[in-house]
Amino acid sequence: VSDAASALGVELEREVREQPECVERQLSQGRDAVEALSQEIRRRAPIGIVIAARGTSDNAGRYAQYVFGANNRLLVSLAAPSLFTLYRSPPSLKGTLVFGISQSGRSPDIVAVLDEARSQGALTVAITREVASPLARAAEHCLALHTGEERAVAATKTYTAQLVTLAMLSAALEGAGARWQELAEVPAAMRAALEANLESVVQIAARFRNAERFVTIGRGFNFATAHEIALKIQEMTYAMAEPYSSADFWHGPAAIVDRGFPVLLVAPSGEPLGDVADLVDLCARRRADLIAISDHGDVLARAAARLPLPIPVREWVSPIAAVVPGQLLALALARARGVDPDQPRGLSKVTETR
Amino acid sequence: VSDAASALGVELEREVREQPECVERQLSQGRDAVEALSQEIRRRAPIGIVIAARGTSDNAGRYAQYVFGANNRLLVSLAAPSLFTLYRSPPSLKGTLVFGISQSGRSPDIVAVLDEARSQGALTVAITREVASPLARAAEHCLALHTGEERAVAATKTYTAQLVTLAMLSAALEGAGARWQELAEVPAAMRAALEANLESVVQIAARFRNAERFVTIGRGFNFATAHEIALKIQEMTYAMAEPYSSADFWHGPAAIVDRGFPVLLVAPSGEPLGDVADLVDLCARRRADLIAISDHGDVLARAAARLPLPIPVREWVSPIAAVVPGQLLALALARARGVDPDQPRGLSKVTETR
Repeated sequence: VSDAASALGVELEREVREQPECVERQLSQGRDAVEALSQEIRRRAPIGIVIAARGTSDNAGRYAQYVFGANNRLLVSLAAPSLFTLYRSPPSLKGTLVFGISQSGRSPDIVAVLDEARSQGALTVAITREVASPLARAAEHCLALHTGEERAVAATKTYTAQLVTLAMLSAALEGAGARWQELAEVPAAMRAALEANLESVVQIAARFRNAERFVTIGRGFNFATAHEIALKIQEMTYAMAEPYSSADFWHGPAAIVDRGFPVLLVAPSGEPLGDVADLVDLCARRRADLIAISDHGDVLARAAARLPLPIPVREWVSPIAAVVPGQLLALALARARGVDPDQPRGLSKVTETR
Repeated sequence: VSDAASALGVELEREVREQPECVERQLSQGRDAVEALSQEIRRRAPIGIVIAARGTSDNAGRYAQYVFGANNRLLVSLAAPSLFTLYRSPPSLKGTLVFGISQSGRSPDIVAVLDEARSQGALTVAITREVASPLARAAEHCLALHTGEERAVAATKTYTAQLVTLAMLSAALEGAGARWQELAEVPAAMRAALEANLESVVQIAARFRNAERFVTIGRGFNFATAHEIALKIQEMTYAMAEPYSSADFWHGPAAIVDRGFPVLLVAPSGEPLGDVADLVDLCARRRADLIAISDHGDVLARAAARLPLPIPVREWVSPIAAVVPGQLLALALARARGVDPDQPRGLSKVTETR
């Protein structure tokens, strides 16, 4: 890395590297609040979960859809905030559990969803770094993100803190001790992912520095990871990156993949490995450039660029570690392209959408 | 149009042009089934709606989220089919109304969601062209799409038939006569959109024939339209097109827009026009190339390329007409690039995802 390049994204790199520590802190300092809330949720027995979020936080919502669906049998809906704001005709939220997720707690449309949900008698929870924010005040309960300040515009440590908070709440609701053990293994897996990729992403980024288009693919729990890595690439590099579920990919988007097209596959071990194999074959047939994030030797061996996850974790918690090499790649791509990811063009840290 | 180019996508063009007639047929021949189902839905009083769909049909599900949310106060969730198939750990669907939407009725994962929903006692409805398909057999009720056979791989007339069917059911549930009148105005608006754009898209496509990246933007009811037009561009032209809500666009993706970047804005008159104005300003500042689908003179006047909607309709039904110029543009782009949209690379008409 040249000195000029490594001067770019200094805040961002620091925050990416802080993540294992932040997740550890969340697991210890966040546990009591999660256990208390899980008691209240059991008492209220919600008919389903509704999540209001934008951007990176919406990707945490995508993870919640799988975690609470698979582990707690709770149906999760991602709210359409404009029904509450633009159209002023919100759906009935009676009997639901409503999460507002926002690192700053200051997005007016997310606050509006929580206000309406509370007035309808729904159980409302803010997940935010700012416990004195409008979002935290709007909600009945607040789960604080123990990340400290996040200064880079692109969210990284608040995203993984959101994921682990949702996973902790799922574990507390399920009341299964094994889940907590599986969660405790995540920080080491994140550290290993950082160490294994911190330097090697520089070469990978050099290879793809002129690519203006990426697709990112994940399924199930890691559909969220594909979305989040695509968002990081777009925010930091101005290249275009489109996320897909491997299931949806065959309904149309597969047509765009041809020779040299970069396809980033999020493929930790787990149930979707059958899909992953089909996609690896597609990339080989079309001579596309496969970039693989995986703990699976066969998948890595067939990739043009490897982003290894040296320590495997259980699939349901794998998104917390699997996003890390993607964040590093986005940062390295930004540096290779001479863009400062701490100051993306036209973005600000707090986005106030109506 | 050269003869060689117009020989491409012959099936697709025929099906795009059939749409006003298909929507008229749906409005007349589909009405009784919709009214009967709405009685049953009122009797069962579902706590919310769950939609299982992939690809184009999933975009119809996005429309449903706004229509049933805004007009019927029903919360709509888009199902994560892999919870039912890969993970075999489906969420509780008790008390919900579950739609399976698929033109062919043959996607195994969508059938699996309906099977599970029915076994849990949910009210199940198939929306499909094939009334003898596995999906239609799995569901308790079926709303047939009266489109006739769809031969082109890229779905067009089945999409608008799905939209109008969902809109009809919403109107029947609401029991408001004015909605039916608003629906009745749609076929004429579709015809006008076809006539106004059929030839002019050829010049627009020539201008953008080398563009490998597009973003498409819509909000609220037309978030679905932005998704569907992006999917058509990708399926037919192999260019990349990424859909956004104008609200999410400011949380990151706005960074990628710069000089000459094609931004397709779906902007019929309606509540999101404030957002639209902000985006038009952004495109002007960055000197991006704005392609506008609108009935609004000011928006069209500021666009680099105009896809007019000569007959305005009410916002809630506007997606049925607003997608038409986008379909035509995707077809014209395919022809300009010498690609046959009737036979996209690596796609087949029936996609069987697990």
